[in-house]
Amino acid sequence: MDEEATLNANLADKAALLRRLHHGTRPLVLPNAWDVASARLVEKAGFPVVATSSGAIAASLGYEDNNSMPVDEAFGAVARIARNVSIPVTADMEAGYHLSPAEFVARLLDAGAVGCNVEDADHDAGSGLVPAEQHADWLRAVKEAAAERGVDIVLNARLDVMRQAGDEAALFDEAVRRAGRYLEAGADCVFPVNIAAETQIANFVARVKGPVNIVGAGAPPLPRLAQLGVARISFAGTLMRKTYASLEATHSEIARASSALV
Amino acid sequence: MDEEATLNANLADKAALLRRLHHGTRPLVLPNAWDVASARLVEKAGFPVVATSSGAIAASLGYEDNNSMPVDEAFGAVARIARNVSIPVTADMEAGYHLSPAEFVARLLDAGAVGCNVEDADHDAGSGLVPAEQHADWLRAVKEAAAERGVDIVLNARLDVMRQAGDEAALFDEAVRRAGRYLEAGADCVFPVNIAAETQIANFVARVKGPVNIVGAGAPPLPRLAQLGVARISFAGTLMRKTYASLEATHSEIARASSALV
Repeated sequence: MDEEATLNANLADKAALLRRLHHGTRPLVLPNAWDVASARLVEKAGFPVVATSSGAIAASLGYEDNNSMPVDEAFGAVARIARNVSIPVTADMEAGYHLSPAEFVARLLDAGAVGCNVEDADHDAGSGLVPAEQHADWLRAVKEAAAERGVDIVLNARLDVMRQAGDEAALFDEAVRRAGRYLEAGADCVFPVNIAAETQIANFVARVKGPVNIVGAGAPPLPRLAQLGVARISFAGTLMRKTYASLEATHSEIARASSALV
Repeated sequence: MDEEATLNANLADKAALLRRLHHGTRPLVLPNAWDVASARLVEKAGFPVVATSSGAIAASLGYEDNNSMPVDEAFGAVARIARNVSIPVTADMEAGYHLSPAEFVARLLDAGAVGCNVEDADHDAGSGLVPAEQHADWLRAVKEAAAERGVDIVLNARLDVMRQAGDEAALFDEAVRRAGRYLEAGADCVFPVNIAAETQIANFVARVKGPVNIVGAGAPPLPRLAQLGVARISFAGTLMRKTYASLEATHSEIARASSALV
């Protein structure tokens, strides 16, 4: 095999492993990373996958978390992480940075990631959602472009429905409906944000025919999420915020000592 | 004024402020940052300057801390920080990444920094030091290139002498001798590493005719360093290591909860 074929075979193996972990007897638990140091600690702690948080990466690099990060910066951060860990990497890619499906997949695989999150929020409009069919078509095209490269990437379709204004029950139904469309389009997992109550999680898992990702911060504890049938538990930007809160406390100590100097 | 002149005037003002802070009644205290999030917290805590740590940046981006980081990555990290804080930024630039003085200064100012650390370790040889005159010439040329740009950057000359093998008293004398040469060449501050004992610090400050930077971790407390006449106290990579140790503890908790799942 030539070098590119070897690289792709290695990525295909990692994608297959990442996919299997969505169908195990226990949920896939992902303490999201934002830089190489945090990703290395994820691997060191024994987790089988590194997942990034776009919100945490944006905070680390100084950008807004609204699909406006320069594309080279977004994929550069993922590439640095993937180069420095040996386990599969799945990357939170906001709303896809306006890339065509082919370019998105090429950049993702070149960065060394084998999975991604893509959300259906319409950042260009400032609020609201991309129409469901349009988003499903984009997701389908991403899976097809990945298949052409020989790497069946693990696509986690984030649903921003429950962040919209409106009747909660109607929004919930719309989230279920969109989840079905995205799974039909080839998504490997669906990720409804702002669903944290036990009954909502149980209801969502029951109505959706595919693996479900729930944020494990502000939600029931891990054993309960596992009982509810959640396939994937991530932490979004919460671990970074907690980590940098400890830095803030250290700064306060140094600032107090410093201002006492004469 | 055209745009570049305005930018340079702004940088010149910041450089002047950074320089004054080396000659105040109390030491300049610098809790080193490594990314935008940590830099923003430095500013939020009320410190007057953001100083980077090259070791911490290297760990965050996945490189060795031995002058081998890709130049674009090194200055890119500084630029992201400088874009996102309003206070002066001084950047730890390892051994200068093999750049000519003119290119080094151009990249530093384009990144928005107004000060830098440069060390005299000879990373190309794997160990040892760059000959004192050769290093002094490089430092002098950096100051001249900066003057041509109209920004009198604050040059902190790091002395890696005390990291070498040999008789400690002889190394100490060599550090004092090099400090004198670097100050003559235009350095604004000298930064001997591996000097942490009170008597050594007092002795170094007494023998060197210019501001001295000491690492305030593993050294006497800040009030004592101030009494000893230390002008600048930084923390190198210690704050990042402490911060990520808290992340490691969080990972352990999640890993324990995760492995208990059935």
